[in-house]
Amino acid sequence: MTPAFEKLQQALKSLPGVGYRSAERMALHLLVEKPERRIALVAALEAAARAVHRCVRCGNLAEGEQCAVCADTRRDDAVVCVVEHVPDLVAMERSGAYRGVYHVLYGRLSPINGVGPGELNWEALRTRLESGAVRELILALGNDVEGEATCHFITQHLGTVHDVAVKVSRIGFGLPSGGGVLYADAVTLKSALDGRRDYV
Amino acid sequence: MTPAFEKLQQALKSLPGVGYRSAERMALHLLVEKPERRIALVAALEAAARAVHRCVRCGNLAEGEQCAVCADTRRDDAVVCVVEHVPDLVAMERSGAYRGVYHVLYGRLSPINGVGPGELNWEALRTRLESGAVRELILALGNDVEGEATCHFITQHLGTVHDVAVKVSRIGFGLPSGGGVLYADAVTLKSALDGRRDYV
Repeated sequence: MTPAFEKLQQALKSLPGVGYRSAERMALHLLVEKPERRIALVAALEAAARAVHRCVRCGNLAEGEQCAVCADTRRDDAVVCVVEHVPDLVAMERSGAYRGVYHVLYGRLSPINGVGPGELNWEALRTRLESGAVRELILALGNDVEGEATCHFITQHLGTVHDVAVKVSRIGFGLPSGGGVLYADAVTLKSALDGRRDYV
Repeated sequence: MTPAFEKLQQALKSLPGVGYRSAERMALHLLVEKPERRIALVAALEAAARAVHRCVRCGNLAEGEQCAVCADTRRDDAVVCVVEHVPDLVAMERSGAYRGVYHVLYGRLSPINGVGPGELNWEALRTRLESGAVRELILALGNDVEGEATCHFITQHLGTVHDVAVKVSRIGFGLPSGGGVLYADAVTLKSALDGRRDYV
């Protein structure tokens, strides 16, 4: 096809889950079949980029000062779930299992990659913890070395805050729903053993 | 999420092959994870919309006056393959089996939907046929009633053009490559029977 077409195809291919052929199909769709959708897509991309920013409190996507979760008075403000990224928050919300609020770190500690607390949304979390308004902290960070290091860093900091008693937990690790022992890898099984619970 | 986010998700969901969840993942990717890709995507969409238009001769996507196929002197200009849409042309090119040129009709006759020759890229094809430069016409239109009607219309018109002898064929119908008789539907099998060839 033409150079501009191929450049568009490349841009579409950079989207998650989109391969070469799907990108070609999308580019033809937007250029030939439904140009009105191209106009709508550009408008939506630019409007969202303008309107959407980080919630001042938790870092979630917001259009006003606070995100929809923080602004929802039915949510329990004293329970904070710490996640790495916004998609993690979205996944938690989708589960429908959580009624507290969030804090998005925008990453995790990774000294080897030069990611320290200063590169994360950590100051805002520290302020929240030191305010004394947080009663419970649920660490929903990844099941790996960097997730572990980040959990360790947060709990160590909590130990230095006087006058604040916060219950800290980390989400469970083990077999996914519907997963059999046969299909689980060794590290998952180790997590599952470490995380075993009394069963009456 | 926020209203602008949901609008973006809707716009992404309108792309072919993209569902609700993929659209959400793409929107998060473009807004949070890789904003630079959002900027590149908008630029590529707008540049392609500006640069890409229809080839004056065949209707394929082009940036100059003629498309890459028409401008390629190694292609046989006397053989014209008629397709419904640009993606059909792309599929033919991908096969690598064709060395002639194309004509994109941008649809097919469908009186019931108000699509007559005037709604198609038909005048340009008529001019090409009447110029006498076309020696062979390959009709690569769909295997259905409207494809049949469009083929009929084109061949009937050819009959009214004096002094022009054009060999006309329609692409074969039948079992797809790798397809077994067991899995073919009744209409495909009928096409395959009608299109049987002598086999020595």
